[in-house]
Amino acid sequence: MTRETPRLSEQDEAFDAVLTLPDPPIADQPAEDLEDLALGDDYALNPEYVEMVVDAADRNDEARLRELLDALHSADVADLMGFLTAEYREDVIKYLDSEVLAEVISELEDDLREEVLEATPSAALAKALESLDSDDAADVVDDLEDDKRAEVLAAMPEIERAAIESTLAYEEETAGRLMQREVVAAPQFWTVGQAIDHLRTEGADLPELFFDIYVVDPSYKPVGAVPVSHLLRAPRTSGLAEIMEAVTEVTAEMDQEEVAYIFNKYHLISAPVIDAGGRLVGQITVDDIVGVIREEAQEDILALAGVSDAGRDAGVGDIVRSRLPWLLLNLLTAAVSVSGVALFQEEIVRLVQLAVLMPIVSSLGGNAGTQTLAVAVRALGAKEMSAANAGRVIGRELTVGLINGLALAAVMGAAVFAIYHKPLLALTVSLALIVNTFIAALGGILAPLALEKMGRDPAVSSSIFVTFLTDFSGFFAVLLIATLLHA
Amino acid sequence: MTRETPRLSEQDEAFDAVLTLPDPPIADQPAEDLEDLALGDDYALNPEYVEMVVDAADRNDEARLRELLDALHSADVADLMGFLTAEYREDVIKYLDSEVLAEVISELEDDLREEVLEATPSAALAKALESLDSDDAADVVDDLEDDKRAEVLAAMPEIERAAIESTLAYEEETAGRLMQREVVAAPQFWTVGQAIDHLRTEGADLPELFFDIYVVDPSYKPVGAVPVSHLLRAPRTSGLAEIMEAVTEVTAEMDQEEVAYIFNKYHLISAPVIDAGGRLVGQITVDDIVGVIREEAQEDILALAGVSDAGRDAGVGDIVRSRLPWLLLNLLTAAVSVSGVALFQEEIVRLVQLAVLMPIVSSLGGNAGTQTLAVAVRALGAKEMSAANAGRVIGRELTVGLINGLALAAVMGAAVFAIYHKPLLALTVSLALIVNTFIAALGGILAPLALEKMGRDPAVSSSIFVTFLTDFSGFFAVLLIATLLHA
Repeated sequence: MTRETPRLSEQDEAFDAVLTLPDPPIADQPAEDLEDLALGDDYALNPEYVEMVVDAADRNDEARLRELLDALHSADVADLMGFLTAEYREDVIKYLDSEVLAEVISELEDDLREEVLEATPSAALAKALESLDSDDAADVVDDLEDDKRAEVLAAMPEIERAAIESTLAYEEETAGRLMQREVVAAPQFWTVGQAIDHLRTEGADLPELFFDIYVVDPSYKPVGAVPVSHLLRAPRTSGLAEIMEAVTEVTAEMDQEEVAYIFNKYHLISAPVIDAGGRLVGQITVDDIVGVIREEAQEDILALAGVSDAGRDAGVGDIVRSRLPWLLLNLLTAAVSVSGVALFQEEIVRLVQLAVLMPIVSSLGGNAGTQTLAVAVRALGAKEMSAANAGRVIGRELTVGLINGLALAAVMGAAVFAIYHKPLLALTVSLALIVNTFIAALGGILAPLALEKMGRDPAVSSSIFVTFLTDFSGFFAVLLIATLLHA
Repeated sequence: MTRETPRLSEQDEAFDAVLTLPDPPIADQPAEDLEDLALGDDYALNPEYVEMVVDAADRNDEARLRELLDALHSADVADLMGFLTAEYREDVIKYLDSEVLAEVISELEDDLREEVLEATPSAALAKALESLDSDDAADVVDDLEDDKRAEVLAAMPEIERAAIESTLAYEEETAGRLMQREVVAAPQFWTVGQAIDHLRTEGADLPELFFDIYVVDPSYKPVGAVPVSHLLRAPRTSGLAEIMEAVTEVTAEMDQEEVAYIFNKYHLISAPVIDAGGRLVGQITVDDIVGVIREEAQEDILALAGVSDAGRDAGVGDIVRSRLPWLLLNLLTAAVSVSGVALFQEEIVRLVQLAVLMPIVSSLGGNAGTQTLAVAVRALGAKEMSAANAGRVIGRELTVGLINGLALAAVMGAAVFAIYHKPLLALTVSLALIVNTFIAALGGILAPLALEKMGRDPAVSSSIFVTFLTDFSGFFAVLLIATLLHA
């Protein structure tokens, strides 16, 4: 909500003007109209706008480039960077002033950010970082190479440097890293009037935005919170202790996923962060949490698919490195799975249809297992599954596996019989499908539960185990049952 | 942040007392300690606490049950419901007072909520709903059966009924449904002092919590916003028009996923909602958005796995219905895939190792395709991919597919040659792997892009298409290359 915030409303006056006046040639449009051109109907950056920036850079048209950048919110400049090649990005960086550059850097993804940081002189960076909140500044400093980090920190004022260094002392992905040190605290004995007067006189030292005032005891432990909107509404003579509410604290060491869970569960807007001694050391606001929730959910999607995202701007080498190990691991498990098949080669030569039908049984098992797995990972993430109902959930999944297996077996058995007119072959495939769908349910629910129990992320490595299990049992069940039945 | 908010800090005084005093028998612990017992280290409800509730219900111990429930935040009571069977849930509902019941109902998932709504008399429900914000109340009313909905609405005061009915007039999953009608607006010519005095005198009619005051023109169109924390800091004589900031509006018809994107991108805490005429009709606050972001991400996880979540409390029948259609569709595509194999049965009889190796080629193609797909779905969701960079991304994915294919082919070719000593067989499998990994990359990137282009959700139905493609091309490539090479 800064000056650059684009107006998203289609009822915007400037937009109406665009609609009613004849369109001037693009290059002559005044800056006002650029804001409307920048974003598409889906509020993402317009590809045409990216073209306009590239065009201005190609023509070395400084004034135009500056105008195009000025019309964008810093989040959109960060987006723009993602759509440009390295050379155009440098042109853009040149024309951003220090405060905007700081915001853009803080919005950039890791890989792009590293590149931009390398290209920016240490002194300019130190100046830019001073305008950020301590959590955002620390986040950026953390991404600097060791040498440059020392230079940048040395160029910053003592107080900002200390704040960044103590933030970085917390482990990654903890509340300590997410929190900002700027916080509004008031003693229990203050009145509403005293608090408001304090806010008005100390304005300069306060956080840019805040939503709750934390009431602290003499040892600086939070004992309650007063939402700013309640402070405004209460009589000036009320004591803070009378109108304060119970407060949900988070500890600085808490994992960010836990923090996000608490914010979501209790619909928090901000929460005080306390150190091991229970003292107030900072606050986390919900806008930081929105980012965490997105990240964590996206990590689950990628983990289930066996891939870590190398980032929008990653090179081919990075992407290969992020995907090939998983594929090699799958090659290994697939080789183990089919080694069972090798034992039954005679069976296949005798009844070649088995070679045709086996992969169907394995593939359906894999699908059924993936379904169960995705549901289990979601339920574990939402803490909807625990020791209190694990038995019930497992029983339900196994029942579902059995019913789905019976249904698939009926359809496939009938089809096989209709095509090949071999009742024993149809029976073999049907029985194998029932067995494999059941095993898929078993693996799909137990693998993530076991990983969770071991304190590991249930989304990571569950899927390779389940696929391995259903491949192996699919091949094996078909061939073993065929042998036993003399199909 | 209500009275029931549990204290989550381990440094809590009551918690210290539990640690230093000898443990009294569980049944005798005072209510203070119950708050600490309720939540585990991971801030989820303790399974032991669920046991205590069940135990109290079994003993018909009303006082104890009430005590156990009083110690819980309404979000935790909702959680508790999820872990109980229907019969125990009814015991719990009996002892909740109307305001808490309203909050619990609003926290419940759909399937549980319907059950609880059926069990609650219309008059009690109408009373409970009055204490909720208009968006939450409308959400609950929307879940009522037609008869009961009419009864409940008839029993509510006119003003609340009108608010709920006009919220329900908006489509599901739009900003209109998410917004609350309670909003603080002020005319442009007011000073800070006038605004503060207004807030203090009109306290009762204001939203329970608010974070921004929207400045409106005479036709009630928002022209700016003043964060409450800025209002508090500014001199009383400043005009609102001087200190207001540009505002990011959302239209009432906007899809909730777009709203979430905007909140995340611009780090918004609240946003004014405007109608088609540009007039202020409500506001959306970020705590509503946190829920939307979680939901949308979870929908993607489940869609990629080909399953819709039937919910924590769903019966076996519901779950089978949510999964079997997808499995039957997979059975069909798998049957089509292997039908190619049937054409080459003689080839398999001649060289039975093909039956062993084919599934590996298909399976690796499937894995590679799923990796590409997951990354593409994530990038599309984050709007990191658009016409501006689609060509570049596609080119990069195909290059990665080719490199991964070459690497896998080298490993597998060498292994096949070492085991079977058949150079042509090794060559066949290697070539087939390269072809299939490339096709997987092609399908994995083009399928979601095509769905997105058609305005469909790229997570839904991409994965079945990609699996079908890689299964089919895996089998076909192996058998066709083997035939051509006379392997």
